[in-house]
Amino acid sequence: MGMQIVRYKGNSDIRWGVLSGDRVIHIDNDASTLGGFLKEGLDQARAALEDVQGETSPLNEVELLSPVTKPSTLTCQGANYSSHREESGMTAARPEFNLIFGKADSALCSHDSDVIRPEGVNFLDYEIELGLVIGSEINSPVDVTNENLHQYVAGLVIMNDISARDVQLPEGQWLRGKSYRTFAPAGPYLYILDEDEYPKIHDLELNLWVNDELRQSANTTQLLFKPEETLTELSGVMDFSPGDVLLTGTPGGVAMNLMKEDMEAATKITAPLSEKVKVFAESQSGNDKYLKDGDIIRAAIKSPDTSIDLGEQKNKIISAK
Amino acid sequence: MGMQIVRYKGNSDIRWGVLSGDRVIHIDNDASTLGGFLKEGLDQARAALEDVQGETSPLNEVELLSPVTKPSTLTCQGANYSSHREESGMTAARPEFNLIFGKADSALCSHDSDVIRPEGVNFLDYEIELGLVIGSEINSPVDVTNENLHQYVAGLVIMNDISARDVQLPEGQWLRGKSYRTFAPAGPYLYILDEDEYPKIHDLELNLWVNDELRQSANTTQLLFKPEETLTELSGVMDFSPGDVLLTGTPGGVAMNLMKEDMEAATKITAPLSEKVKVFAESQSGNDKYLKDGDIIRAAIKSPDTSIDLGEQKNKIISAK
Repeated sequence: MGMQIVRYKGNSDIRWGVLSGDRVIHIDNDASTLGGFLKEGLDQARAALEDVQGETSPLNEVELLSPVTKPSTLTCQGANYSSHREESGMTAARPEFNLIFGKADSALCSHDSDVIRPEGVNFLDYEIELGLVIGSEINSPVDVTNENLHQYVAGLVIMNDISARDVQLPEGQWLRGKSYRTFAPAGPYLYILDEDEYPKIHDLELNLWVNDELRQSANTTQLLFKPEETLTELSGVMDFSPGDVLLTGTPGGVAMNLMKEDMEAATKITAPLSEKVKVFAESQSGNDKYLKDGDIIRAAIKSPDTSIDLGEQKNKIISAK
Repeated sequence: MGMQIVRYKGNSDIRWGVLSGDRVIHIDNDASTLGGFLKEGLDQARAALEDVQGETSPLNEVELLSPVTKPSTLTCQGANYSSHREESGMTAARPEFNLIFGKADSALCSHDSDVIRPEGVNFLDYEIELGLVIGSEINSPVDVTNENLHQYVAGLVIMNDISARDVQLPEGQWLRGKSYRTFAPAGPYLYILDEDEYPKIHDLELNLWVNDELRQSANTTQLLFKPEETLTELSGVMDFSPGDVLLTGTPGGVAMNLMKEDMEAATKITAPLSEKVKVFAESQSGNDKYLKDGDIIRAAIKSPDTSIDLGEQKNKIISAK
């Protein structure tokens, strides 16, 4: 059975722990980063689970922090589910390339915290995504397969790729519109898979609710570019380090819903920004699915047999002062 | 007078040094990252310059490494000179927004090293850019002005934002096409400005040659979005840490030269990739400015009075095996 790793606020410091039922077992590891924790923390967590001697706390009494920490390169796959491609005005079929973009790690925030809508952003959207936490240094092209995936991916985490659509699309490059602080809720746990659990990565259920209304519901079997092929491909381009995260894309059901013509007009590279913002806003008039102040997002990822459970991530939308 | 900081290969380790004429004075600092070096290294470098007691080596006998190190967030401004906007099929005037994208730090490479053209990339381009090396933690919105810029920017470095145009433009998101390994030559030096030299950031001459042919020649006075306003703006979005780099954009003169219609067709978000690659390739037929195997790029940035000199960066193009 896998392990659920948490990072949380102690009395005077930040701690790592591992869940045992509804209690957190404290791990004696003071790494300031997830990459640092992964070096010895997993062995320590296994030992702590087998022979609980140290301190434990009730899970519901600790303040969880993002298990993913700065610095962490957040690399994202875009338009990687047919259902999200269609609602974005694109062809449903697997395209000829794996769309890759980045997200700033300063956007990371924890479960049970506020997501801040920046001033001037009127179309705030959610995107549940399976996050693959990298477990080893990748500094050259490697052939990642389902058989050796455990050598490269340490665990799984729920990520929400919060997006300011009226910035992301009209500006063309997505970095800013997806990188505002608090735009990357991560957690509540880092799920560490046992080696025999890796095949289940291809059969995980993703569900996201806004104010208890189910908005996104999908299964990772629908991923167009799979984890192993994506890591193989990207290893030929760039490096990855322990604690980095590959966000595998979001399925259909986000707030944004665009016709092909509107998507084209809202993203035309040579058109003035204000014109694109206007086209986009008009195309979304009457769409009341965008996140409003006070909305509660809940996101869950688990295997159908619930043997793998990444927990439930909850965040509230507030607006910047 | 400012200082020219170098990072280089020692006999068995990696060292930091400061230039004194044509000699490198070794600095007793074993930081593995630029961010770590900046904590105490600059004071050590000043002391070493004033009272040379330790080891020195002739500059031409050391193997220089990139002064910018992993992990470093490379944040880039796009289309930030009118001359480059025009050659890209865009309006010359300052647009309504500061175009921001990212580049993977694993693309960093040194002066006097090879830039590798990836297999299948047929339109490899160069982009000389002034890199601003961040000197302090920026974790919240700050008001950066010309008067306090020295508090946020530690120094300057020549960056070449190497770009695979036939990946960058048709794929839409620029991260991959600009992030292949060796796509970010940095150096040869990190120029540390004295406080009274900061105004000269607005009057630096950029020149880039391919095989001794001058291709890019501009002055930072032509930057559309200035360093201080860009940092102010981005501080409201994301964090910066010491050793991160803001690449301020490239002026005209790159190999790519696109009519508006071709830029639109090559980047249309809903069009199939192969169609966009074809349109792009056809639009560039007869353009022999793209980088070829064996080409030598040289890039230099200095103030007109040469009091600020970032050195000359030289790199050779080779193709991947």
